[in-house]
Amino acid sequence: MNDVIESHAFLNEAPLSKQDFEAAIRAVGAERYHDKHPFHKLLHGGKLNKDQVRAWALNRYCYQEAVPRKDAAFMSRAHDRELRREWIHRIHDHDGLGDEAGGIERWLVLTDGLGLPRDYVISRRGALPATKFAVEAYVRYVVEQPLVVAVASSLTELFAPAIHRERIAGMLENYDFVDDHVMAYFKRRLSQAPRDADFALEYIKQNALSRPEQEACIEAVRFKCDVLWAQLDALHHAYVTPGVIPPGAYQPGQSFP
Amino acid sequence: MNDVIESHAFLNEAPLSKQDFEAAIRAVGAERYHDKHPFHKLLHGGKLNKDQVRAWALNRYCYQEAVPRKDAAFMSRAHDRELRREWIHRIHDHDGLGDEAGGIERWLVLTDGLGLPRDYVISRRGALPATKFAVEAYVRYVVEQPLVVAVASSLTELFAPAIHRERIAGMLENYDFVDDHVMAYFKRRLSQAPRDADFALEYIKQNALSRPEQEACIEAVRFKCDVLWAQLDALHHAYVTPGVIPPGAYQPGQSFP
Repeated sequence: MNDVIESHAFLNEAPLSKQDFEAAIRAVGAERYHDKHPFHKLLHGGKLNKDQVRAWALNRYCYQEAVPRKDAAFMSRAHDRELRREWIHRIHDHDGLGDEAGGIERWLVLTDGLGLPRDYVISRRGALPATKFAVEAYVRYVVEQPLVVAVASSLTELFAPAIHRERIAGMLENYDFVDDHVMAYFKRRLSQAPRDADFALEYIKQNALSRPEQEACIEAVRFKCDVLWAQLDALHHAYVTPGVIPPGAYQPGQSFP
Repeated sequence: MNDVIESHAFLNEAPLSKQDFEAAIRAVGAERYHDKHPFHKLLHGGKLNKDQVRAWALNRYCYQEAVPRKDAAFMSRAHDRELRREWIHRIHDHDGLGDEAGGIERWLVLTDGLGLPRDYVISRRGALPATKFAVEAYVRYVVEQPLVVAVASSLTELFAPAIHRERIAGMLENYDFVDDHVMAYFKRRLSQAPRDADFALEYIKQNALSRPEQEACIEAVRFKCDVLWAQLDALHHAYVTPGVIPPGAYQPGQSFP
């Protein structure tokens, strides 16, 4: 792990200006964010059938479910109380707090709307192994990398509002089994993600001071894009082309014991 | 790690009744909780000077500071959202939430009252290495042990209210540099600890079903008592008898650069 900082690349180079550092982070999204994946084009364009949308939603549940564990793992490493006090609202956003049910509950409203039994979704039994490997790699990354790199890996949130807006519009227009109610998760994220991304961007600008640290942060955003992209590759392979579903994974039309 | 579950001890024995299981947990406190340590007798009996109380407070800060990281580490391993939603209030109790400052802030009010600079306390520079090793061993234990065993390791809270009441009364009576304001941490814990202990006790009763699992939970309480006891041994050795202070640790009368 931690390849970039430990390598000799950039060791003798001056730090990027804060402006160039931010531009380099944003360039990763332009090149690698999963809005460019063909599966998302199909999803948002109404080209998937209900079973394929189900497969997407129940696999993506694994990612949703990993995020608060990832954020708790981050907090478990942070000695700075103010940083923890800021970061904890990410867990509240996903798990809810008191009467607020949180993002995972809103995701389950989506899978409810698609006719998937909650127990089945929550069990992650029907998810693709590649999905689970990818999201747990993200949790481990946050456990193992320097804190500033762990913060940087959250910065795909910079690119999220655009895809969420495209998804809300496309799915509402194109699928008769999707309505405002089941899309509530994405609507809420339109306001949550920018707040988080602003904080994280400011944090890495203040704390990644050397060029190797900056490059490690840029690499973290590439890594995170890989985590997101790999999930769509697995979905596309299993449920679109060639459509070879791994043993144990969700089968269109299956019953739910 | 995880010696008891992996050993063959108790493998063929029937589970304890819930009542006997709870009694075995409570018996660990009666035998091993740090209310029995001679350092606490000195502390609560007014037998320490202000420098010795300072040493206690700045070392114990390391434990306070580790607890929310320990709780975040626990949450990072919990797939059960309801369990995370319950557990997170422990982090709120220590780190605060919004306008509520939290237990670590209350601890710093205590170290303020003792005339220790906050930066020095928070840096943990002057803490004994044995203190830091002990509290970080607790964080690692919660990362590495089965979840139910990790829950059990919190159960020294069953024994905390008695020592807190003794401490509040004893320190207020015996030290002119201690007042109600600086003892606020312990007063708050009188109501927080029992709630947490009740939940944890119920959780292990419901989730440690085999005898080896139950024994691992009992062992977890012993482990946690060791974590607390080791901190007092180190304090006693450095600041009471023989009074040999390790290099770098807080020195009575030192200046704070």
